[in-house]
Amino acid sequence: MSSDHKTSPLDRRRFLGAAGLAGAGLAAASLPLRAQEAKPDPLITEVQDWNRYLGEGVDKRPYGTPSPFEKHIVRRDVSWLTASPDSSVNFTPLHELDGIITPSGLCFERHHGGIAEIDPANHRLMIHGLVDKPLVFTMEDIRRMPRQNHVHFLECAANSGMEWRGAQLNGCQFTHGMVHNVMYTGVPLRLLLAEAGLKPTAKWLMLEGADSSGMNRSLPVEKALDDVLIAFAMNGEALRPEQGYPLRAVVPGWEGNIWVKWLRRIEAGDKSWQAREETSKYTDLLADGRSRRYTFIMDAKSVVTNPSPQAPLKHKGRNVLSGLAWSGRGTIKRVDVTLDGGKNWQAARIDGPVLEKSLTRFYVDFDWAGQELLIQSRAMDSTGYVQPTKDELRKVRGVNSIYHNNGIQTWQVRPNGETENVEIA
Amino acid sequence: MSSDHKTSPLDRRRFLGAAGLAGAGLAAASLPLRAQEAKPDPLITEVQDWNRYLGEGVDKRPYGTPSPFEKHIVRRDVSWLTASPDSSVNFTPLHELDGIITPSGLCFERHHGGIAEIDPANHRLMIHGLVDKPLVFTMEDIRRMPRQNHVHFLECAANSGMEWRGAQLNGCQFTHGMVHNVMYTGVPLRLLLAEAGLKPTAKWLMLEGADSSGMNRSLPVEKALDDVLIAFAMNGEALRPEQGYPLRAVVPGWEGNIWVKWLRRIEAGDKSWQAREETSKYTDLLADGRSRRYTFIMDAKSVVTNPSPQAPLKHKGRNVLSGLAWSGRGTIKRVDVTLDGGKNWQAARIDGPVLEKSLTRFYVDFDWAGQELLIQSRAMDSTGYVQPTKDELRKVRGVNSIYHNNGIQTWQVRPNGETENVEIA
Repeated sequence: MSSDHKTSPLDRRRFLGAAGLAGAGLAAASLPLRAQEAKPDPLITEVQDWNRYLGEGVDKRPYGTPSPFEKHIVRRDVSWLTASPDSSVNFTPLHELDGIITPSGLCFERHHGGIAEIDPANHRLMIHGLVDKPLVFTMEDIRRMPRQNHVHFLECAANSGMEWRGAQLNGCQFTHGMVHNVMYTGVPLRLLLAEAGLKPTAKWLMLEGADSSGMNRSLPVEKALDDVLIAFAMNGEALRPEQGYPLRAVVPGWEGNIWVKWLRRIEAGDKSWQAREETSKYTDLLADGRSRRYTFIMDAKSVVTNPSPQAPLKHKGRNVLSGLAWSGRGTIKRVDVTLDGGKNWQAARIDGPVLEKSLTRFYVDFDWAGQELLIQSRAMDSTGYVQPTKDELRKVRGVNSIYHNNGIQTWQVRPNGETENVEIA
Repeated sequence: MSSDHKTSPLDRRRFLGAAGLAGAGLAAASLPLRAQEAKPDPLITEVQDWNRYLGEGVDKRPYGTPSPFEKHIVRRDVSWLTASPDSSVNFTPLHELDGIITPSGLCFERHHGGIAEIDPANHRLMIHGLVDKPLVFTMEDIRRMPRQNHVHFLECAANSGMEWRGAQLNGCQFTHGMVHNVMYTGVPLRLLLAEAGLKPTAKWLMLEGADSSGMNRSLPVEKALDDVLIAFAMNGEALRPEQGYPLRAVVPGWEGNIWVKWLRRIEAGDKSWQAREETSKYTDLLADGRSRRYTFIMDAKSVVTNPSPQAPLKHKGRNVLSGLAWSGRGTIKRVDVTLDGGKNWQAARIDGPVLEKSLTRFYVDFDWAGQELLIQSRAMDSTGYVQPTKDELRKVRGVNSIYHNNGIQTWQVRPNGETENVEIA
């Protein structure tokens, strides 16, 4: 691939061709070779310390941690931006990650009253309201019910929120880092509701957390009976404390705020609760002063994670462009990438599992001659929906809201490799 | 399901029926309900401390860790069994995990000279021998090549090794815990070899680690050109130090010992290297004194992780039986489970992604009346291969070897719920 390919974004033949290469795992076999030829290199010819001395044994880390050489790879908090760190947010370092699983230790956090520290032996989930039989579940009760495993993205409705008014934050960790993607294990909510017996008049559920903010949201019964999980595990182990240990709602494809953490209560009612988090917050304020409410679904979105402002290009010649795409309405069918600000587009190589309402990884293996690049990615999901430009979104929604910005992101790579968050007309 | 179902393990109709239920997520809708009815419970009616006080903010853990209530969930090392902890092993706590992703901090470790601590800036991979152009790659060189993402199990050839001579170890962590399953990101080895240009006479590669043991193994070129990855990431982030940071071989479906960690050198040759780890070790000593060598592939295997000796049954009535199945030859097609020592079998409910050469999760949602159980699971893979009994294996291989025991495991659950590792004729 090179930046002067005249490729229509809708050139179906080329799309299939790229997919075929990816299937054969040979996508870049024709790239020029850049690896350094063998020559005397003390790192090769001389015995190094790690070759000479015994390393740490198997008894030192019953629970393992990353290499000390990775200690800069962390969630970045912005509690300096908020009134307190207890009701604040930190960000997933997307530019340092690969594949589609977010390591649990690097999943962004957002709390409204700090992390509740709960002994699972003392945790209860109550289901009541418009039900035949109110029920209280212990964690052991829940663990004895049929469970399922699903990989899903969780995106905060405010992800990319500061970008509504133009390029603001210099790094995909900050523009797009309020998203993560893990494998959850939990009990389908419909099974819990079946035990309690939802009355026919029940149309909405109220989900409430056991944290100090008592975070609560209204969930339509239709979604609850569809694919919502009450999860106790993520990436194979118990939920992390900041992700709602010991129990959280998993609401696939919907904004993160409704994935109530430290879940202690589900009340069935005949209308929504008008909770603080769905009236004063998590509504989309339009230009005319009206608000869109209950805009639950996170539409198709994508971002190039490498190169990006925190991960500039360091080498001419061969390079890997990498990114993530996701949709709250299904699977990702295609991602198009441009390197020249939209003059030419090509289908990216999607690699790894393509799962329902999950992050999906894409790549473009390309050669860089040192020219300026204007990089964008544009996702298309299984419903045929195509990710819009920011300007297209602004025309419809104005710039008052901080929520639900799924507009196309632009990175400018300069000849020296430095990369910046920009907007182009 | 109940233990007196008269179900043939090959009853295709029943198998499809169970799969259909799993798809609908309704596998246990007909089970008796056991959740406790709502009644005054101070944990519900009174405000708890975690409701009353602000919790920890987003600024405290740039890299997150499990809840303090989970601190007993760790890898168990057996360095008391070996000459030193530097050449020893610890075990994945399979009975505490769910889904198919093993958290990186709980992936078992096996080293032959301790964990090499390597600065990635000083790491090199050399490819030489029967190649047109010997090459040295830096980590940055490798990260600029086309990469792929795959979830694969890694199983030590010696997993379940002590069980050859009868039930020895009381817990699936110890009998089966030398296996883990993560998503790897890496460059197909065939792309690296294409750069160096393998000569037609090259039939074997020698892979060598940069650790103090200089661990090395011979790999047939045919496998190297098939699906081997040179991986730098696992579960989205850099490899963990004990898993070969910054670079390891991923050899899907093959015994763990050949997944060389801290990979520094690949030499192409015309025959195998007769390395220590493929002559004195990692061969299967038969009853007549001959050894099977280069027995790379890990055949289909399964184990029930719950209940198991470390995770006894605690409640009568509704329960979840859970387990893992895997095959080095493809995907898992079916898992049969018996609760009565083989009189009756039923198809387990497989849940979550079913991926190539990956752990696969299965469940049986069952009611327990308090009777003794003799639990076994039996995996069938996409080649039609069925996991054998231990006795079937012993007839063919004798009991001298400690490697490649994929025999069916039996747990005995007593009326008080305690569970033990047993063998039945």
